[in-house]
Parts: sequence; C-alpha cells; structure tokens
Amino acid sequence: MTKKGELSIKQRFGLAIKQRRGELGISQEELAFKSGLHRTYISDIERGTRNPSLENIEKLAKALEISISTLFANYGIE
Amino acid sequence: MTKKGELSIKQRFGLAIKQRRGELGISQEELAFKSGLHRTYISDIERGTRNPSLENIEKLAKALEISISTLFANYGIE
Repeated sequence: MTKKGELSIKQRFGLAIKQRRGELGISQEELAFKSGLHRTYISDIERGTRNPSLENIEKLAKALEISISTLFANYGIE
Repeated sequence: MTKKGELSIKQRFGLAIKQRRGELGISQEELAFKSGLHRTYISDIERGTRNPSLENIEKLAKALEISISTLFANYGIE
C-alpha cells in the first residue's frame, strides 16, 4: 500500500478533491457542472493523472465551497 | 489603480510570488535556479501572465520555503 508521503502532489490533490466532494455528497457530474469542467477531467483529477492549472484549481475549490488554502492545508495535500 | 478584488488569480498569484521572493531577498534568477524553472517563466508568473500548473506551484513554493496553503492564505491570493 503506497504511503501518503510517496504520493505525488497530483495524486494527493486528487484524493483531496474526492474527499471534499464526498463530504458535500455530490457526484462527479455535479462537480463538473458546478466547476464548468468536463466530467472525465474530474475523474482524471481524482485519479491523480492530471496536472491542473491555477485557474482550474480555483474553479474546483469554488465548486467545492472551500478556499484553496484550506483545501491544501486540511486535506492531506501538504 | 486596480483594486486587489479586480485582479485575476494569476495576477494575485504573481504578486504573492514577487512579495515572498522580496522577503527572502533573492533575485528572479536565483528563484529560477532554486525552482528548476526558467527565468522568463518566473518573470511572466510575477506579471500574472502565466497560468501555472499544480506541479510548478509546488516547485515555486518549495523554492520560496513556504507551504502552498500559507502562500495562498497569507499573501493576498485569497
């Protein structure tokens, strides 16, 4: 089992997005709609295979009703 | 004079990078060397014309000896 420390930032970011989305009880489709991003992009993000831009990070955070700093500090990204 | 609220996240991120770099008293060249990014990229970032990826944000934060969450929370990005 990969320890969190060995995960890339893309993987840690994906896990954080998935965790926060779960807390809000919304689907990938709903997050895609709210953020204005494509559903397959959301799926790739959560699997840690995408390297999102600052603007897409902002869109995701807004859709997840959380600040970027809180997302990074409280969801295991850092 | 543009009020901070009207600035894009790219512009706010650029101002934060410039401010933090100034606090450390290092040049754009030194930040480029420390982060492994190109000097002109650093210059573009500070002018708010680049939309950096998550991995480049991580490189910049590490080179600036600050966590991403602190950079976003304490330097006017959010």
